[in-house]
Amino acid sequence: MQFHLNGFQPGDPEIHAPVESRVDANAQEVDVLIVGSGPAGLTLAAQLAAFPQIRTRIVEQKPGPMELGQADGIACRTMEMFEAFGFAEKIAKEAYWVNETTFWKPDPERRVHIHRSGRIQDTEDGLSEFPHVILNQARVHDRYLETMRNAPRRLEPVYNRRVAEIRRDDARDADYPVTVVLDCLEEGGDGRQEIVKARYVVGCDGARSKVREALGRSLRGDSANQAWGVMDVLAVTDFPDIRMKAAIHSANEGNMLIIPREGGYLVRLYIELDKLREDERVASRNITPDHLVAAANRILQPYTIDVKEIAWWSVYEIGQRLTDKFDDVPEGEEGTRAPRIFIAGDACHTHSPKAGQGMNVSMQDSFNLGWKLAAVLQGQCTSGLLHSYSGERRAIAKELIDFDREFAKMFSAAPKEEGDSEGDGVDPKEFQRYFVKQGRFTAGTETRYGPSLITGAADHENLANGFPVGMRFHSAPVIRLADAKPMQLGHVVKADGRWRIFAFAGAGDPACESSGLLGLLEFLFRSENSPVVRYTPEGEDIDSVIDLRAVFQQDFRTMELSELPPYLLPSKGRYGLRDYEKVFCADLKNDCDVFDMRGIDRQRGCMVVVRPDQYVAQVLPLDGTAALAALFDGFMLRR
Amino acid sequence: MQFHLNGFQPGDPEIHAPVESRVDANAQEVDVLIVGSGPAGLTLAAQLAAFPQIRTRIVEQKPGPMELGQADGIACRTMEMFEAFGFAEKIAKEAYWVNETTFWKPDPERRVHIHRSGRIQDTEDGLSEFPHVILNQARVHDRYLETMRNAPRRLEPVYNRRVAEIRRDDARDADYPVTVVLDCLEEGGDGRQEIVKARYVVGCDGARSKVREALGRSLRGDSANQAWGVMDVLAVTDFPDIRMKAAIHSANEGNMLIIPREGGYLVRLYIELDKLREDERVASRNITPDHLVAAANRILQPYTIDVKEIAWWSVYEIGQRLTDKFDDVPEGEEGTRAPRIFIAGDACHTHSPKAGQGMNVSMQDSFNLGWKLAAVLQGQCTSGLLHSYSGERRAIAKELIDFDREFAKMFSAAPKEEGDSEGDGVDPKEFQRYFVKQGRFTAGTETRYGPSLITGAADHENLANGFPVGMRFHSAPVIRLADAKPMQLGHVVKADGRWRIFAFAGAGDPACESSGLLGLLEFLFRSENSPVVRYTPEGEDIDSVIDLRAVFQQDFRTMELSELPPYLLPSKGRYGLRDYEKVFCADLKNDCDVFDMRGIDRQRGCMVVVRPDQYVAQVLPLDGTAALAALFDGFMLRR
Ligand SMILES: Cc1cc2nc3c(=O)[nH]c(=O)nc-3n(C[C@H](O)[C@H](O)[C@H](O)COP(=O)(O)OP(=O)(O)OC[C@H]3O[C@@H](n4cnc5c(N)ncnc54)[C@H](O)[C@@H]3O)c2cc1C
Ligand SMILES: Cc1cc2nc3c(=O)[nH]c(=O)nc-3n(C[C@H](O)[C@H](O)[C@H](O)COP(=O)(O)OP(=O)(O)OC[C@H]3O[C@@H](n4cnc5c(N)ncnc54)[C@H](O)[C@@H]3O)c2cc1C
Repeated sequence: MQFHLNGFQPGDPEIHAPVESRVDANAQEVDVLIVGSGPAGLTLAAQLAAFPQIRTRIVEQKPGPMELGQADGIACRTMEMFEAFGFAEKIAKEAYWVNETTFWKPDPERRVHIHRSGRIQDTEDGLSEFPHVILNQARVHDRYLETMRNAPRRLEPVYNRRVAEIRRDDARDADYPVTVVLDCLEEGGDGRQEIVKARYVVGCDGARSKVREALGRSLRGDSANQAWGVMDVLAVTDFPDIRMKAAIHSANEGNMLIIPREGGYLVRLYIELDKLREDERVASRNITPDHLVAAANRILQPYTIDVKEIAWWSVYEIGQRLTDKFDDVPEGEEGTRAPRIFIAGDACHTHSPKAGQGMNVSMQDSFNLGWKLAAVLQGQCTSGLLHSYSGERRAIAKELIDFDREFAKMFSAAPKEEGDSEGDGVDPKEFQRYFVKQGRFTAGTETRYGPSLITGAADHENLANGFPVGMRFHSAPVIRLADAKPMQLGHVVKADGRWRIFAFAGAGDPACESSGLLGLLEFLFRSENSPVVRYTPEGEDIDSVIDLRAVFQQDFRTMELSELPPYLLPSKGRYGLRDYEKVFCADLKNDCDVFDMRGIDRQRGCMVVVRPDQYVAQVLPLDGTAALAALFDGFMLRR
Repeated sequence: MQFHLNGFQPGDPEIHAPVESRVDANAQEVDVLIVGSGPAGLTLAAQLAAFPQIRTRIVEQKPGPMELGQADGIACRTMEMFEAFGFAEKIAKEAYWVNETTFWKPDPERRVHIHRSGRIQDTEDGLSEFPHVILNQARVHDRYLETMRNAPRRLEPVYNRRVAEIRRDDARDADYPVTVVLDCLEEGGDGRQEIVKARYVVGCDGARSKVREALGRSLRGDSANQAWGVMDVLAVTDFPDIRMKAAIHSANEGNMLIIPREGGYLVRLYIELDKLREDERVASRNITPDHLVAAANRILQPYTIDVKEIAWWSVYEIGQRLTDKFDDVPEGEEGTRAPRIFIAGDACHTHSPKAGQGMNVSMQDSFNLGWKLAAVLQGQCTSGLLHSYSGERRAIAKELIDFDREFAKMFSAAPKEEGDSEGDGVDPKEFQRYFVKQGRFTAGTETRYGPSLITGAADHENLANGFPVGMRFHSAPVIRLADAKPMQLGHVVKADGRWRIFAFAGAGDPACESSGLLGLLEFLFRSENSPVVRYTPEGEDIDSVIDLRAVFQQDFRTMELSELPPYLLPSKGRYGLRDYEKVFCADLKNDCDVFDMRGIDRQRGCMVVVRPDQYVAQVLPLDGTAALAALFDGFMLRR
């Protein structure tokens, strides 16, 4: 965390100085109108709030912030994103950590009883520097709300506003082409309506999205006739794995998933209910919490659970559904018009809750969109960039939904005995194997964006096979040269809309004249073809658009700051102070050398170009300056 | 962090429900009146605020909270204490981390120039799980203020109140024997005074303490005639170690210490000034910041430093001084009366700032006192316990001051050439060796309280030689059995006034009948001689006074919760929910087995009794129940 660059400021550095011309919550013209303050809407709002110039408004039909319920699983990948927003450690502190998952099946000796059939480490070693955690969705919302409140624009959702109507008319107003009509729901609102004009509208308004409807799109897929109940309880039980994530398949009483929760006492139970008849809705069953408690006790035999308090509960059907495009540009018209209206999160796709994807994928959707909107609004990138949102995120949603369908089916199938190849039941061992295999998937770290304007081809993967192009930049430990601080390299990527180039120095660097790194630096900071030179606006710090970081193979004690090329100690801010945080060394002492861990070519080194949302845009040789320039020239604008 | 025990509560679990009968800031009768809101006063206030029953008032002569300046070094031991208060990770995130210290001396080739003569890792491996960090004292204050605000009593300092007079009169009012007269300094106060009656008064009012004066005590020691200047600056320099802690001895221009600061740009410079004449005060020199900048440039030759902004600066003389007792009971009268008035922090002792002790020792003073006052006020312990405060803390202050005197002398001495045994200069190599040797001292981890009512003799040190009696409980990694969470064992010790017994199970535990652990559990939870049975008030949770934790040698995967003695899964709160956080296993996977790391007798196991301030009170064999009972019977009261 850097601060004091432009002068000492007392107080909390996480609370940014407010911009003077703050957007009035009731402004009639905004850059971005966000509909809905769920995880997708809040991620987007927190991202946009980081840019003092952008006027954002976020509206929510409910009367105030969420207090409890809904999703609770936070994947490793999501924690990496939270780190970019600056609150991962707060979530980690408060949350339950999923360390192990245990599997229970009918005891072969006495099938009406369950017994533990296996256990696995939940997240494989080295998958992420963050754990997989569980926390009330409301508390995730709270962290975003805090981030927004501390941001330069002091952004707060406007509650009691429901979108009634949305129109796009480029001809009438080319600057603010989208008109949104809002119903004011507060007491005494008396059917009052408000009209907001926006450059962009993002519908983060959940599965029954009004914005999606306005685009004429719909969620498609199966709505399986399997109903589930979920409840967050305080209970006394003799079931030994009540503080472990536990998947339980009983012989005849159905299945259950146990998710321990934050605070040490609360626990969530997902309980399978009877199959629904064709076209039957779960609501018609009049299921009460008592039914759920009774079912849990039947499944858990010989153990019992005595529920003392139910903090929250819900009943729902599983359905894996997806919409065909996440913006308002019809398929095939991408060349002629740019999108102005988007949808994100549950508005685009719904999942069963057991793979814990809904909240995570929704946030990743709008994290993908946020920096792109900011870049276009600031005149940094062409609006063509915005097409990549639907392209990238729909492909991921499709993969996840296919996975989720398979997983949910497996979960709901009756267990069968090992070796029994008859019947359509699932061998619990097989389920466990599948679970392990899919661990990376559910951790969110398998996401891979295909080649596009902003994601290059994988021509140089051999230079760094631990940083696949299109996947998230996988952090690793390093030592910062100037102050010998042990850190995570990936944590320099903040949710600030900047691009990063990580230059991993080859064997000769930095001493020798013919050094690849030196050549790259000369190009980046001198050449008129350099994206840094081209796209950094006059008067802004040299790292304000593209932030270069260098990583050396040597032990930090053998290196001297004074022998570094001065480009690596750039002058910044109104005093021209030097930024000493650009240079890192491999962490040799603790035996975790980033060059080994990420398979970097020690002889040649390489550069890894990282997008503002932490994904690897390209891996290139240090002298791949033409390809580097071409990448940025494809979507950036001179200002 | 445990919460939801007595029912689900939405919102931030760090914000406690307020008590209804909150103390009015203007109440005339309080349990504890704290004078001064520096580090000592705030540590005490944060500690007392954790107890809903205790009425505390903290007064401060200044008009509001500190915004910058003064101390900035935070020792590892202090971070451990911050962890007990729940904010260590916030400090770690914002602070500069001292990882290396470098040493500079005159270049033998050209003595007017300095060159780097050595470098060392600042904190030796394994000394603490926390780093040594540097942060503006004001930000430490802010964290305490936040803790106080979130505590059940929502405690806030009352500013603009200066203590004018203090009287103790046990005869007139045995309950509230101390009367304090406060001057109201706010504008329009017009010389108004307020009178507060208190059970106890603690003077945390700094080096010119009015409370100390009222006790008729004074600071004694040398006031060396060496003056130093300190400034926090934003600057541009070619000195390469500007982001390292650097100790610089120039040939003829004096000495300087560089302390990098939080945020990446700010840096503190301690600059040695000319010797003062006998009886001369530094104020008479009319030193300006320009003098300091010029001196820094002379010392740094051949490097230069161009100071762009001075955030804070000060000039002072070094003096190591100490008062002879930290409470109002004259030496020798301890048997006949208990103390009612205390002093803590700079009111008792002053240091040179270079060893970075002032703020750290001041906080440790009042951390030592806080739980004792709370225990006596709650009727849990005899008031005789309060004598141990002065006894323990004065001995530590004495040691530190002796160390500081030696260190400061060494720092101010002129450097001499290696091997040159003439003259009274200091060989920089020798300084560096001394620095390494004293690392533990300055980290605060060497503090060792002597035997007393609350600290036993070291009769069983061989059972756990990594937990010396009288020293702080040195944390180590473990795995929590119920949820397989990797954690720091020491972090279960919170600043909540509770005692802890860590029972390290011997080789046979927990399976065998003759197990030492089982015997201990039977004693603790069944015997009428047990301190748990005796001193836990009716109706309170079983761990509310003494909190037992068990640690096993086995891999957590080989153990079953259901085979544990039920005492290790106690029922708590209004629902009788089980607490699953009492049992840990050695972390075998990551090769950091607490039994090896702390030298615990694997055959016999042992118990380690830990005080509410994290210090080891006693190490005993698992069957040492009589000695255990005797320890608690020495100072605890039945309620
Ligand atoms: C009752 C319920 C239970 C769930 N349980 C689980 C679970 O157990 N496990 C799990 O993993 N996931 C669960 N989910 C799913 C998970 O919460 C979602 O995947 C996640 O919240 C999606 O985030 P989102 O921001 O896309 O949409 P949402 O969180 O649905 O947010 C949409 C927001 O938009 C608002 N909104 C809708 N229409 C309008 C409008 N016209 N105008 C203004 N505002 C509008 C809504 O009030 C809402 O606040 C549950 C969801 C629901 C609704
Ligand atoms: C100007 C200055 C510079 C310092 N610089 C450094 C440094 O560079 N490095 C370093 O390590 N340490 C430094 N110190 C020392 C360090 O700040 C102290 O060791 C530390 O603050 C001691 O904490 P304390 O709570 O005991 O006392 P203090 O922090 O001194 O707090 C005492 C408080 O009591 C208040 N008070 C005093 N009298 C009364 C009264 N009669 N009524 C009501 N309130 C009263 C004061 O206003 C003050 O807020 C400096 C101290 C000072 C004063």
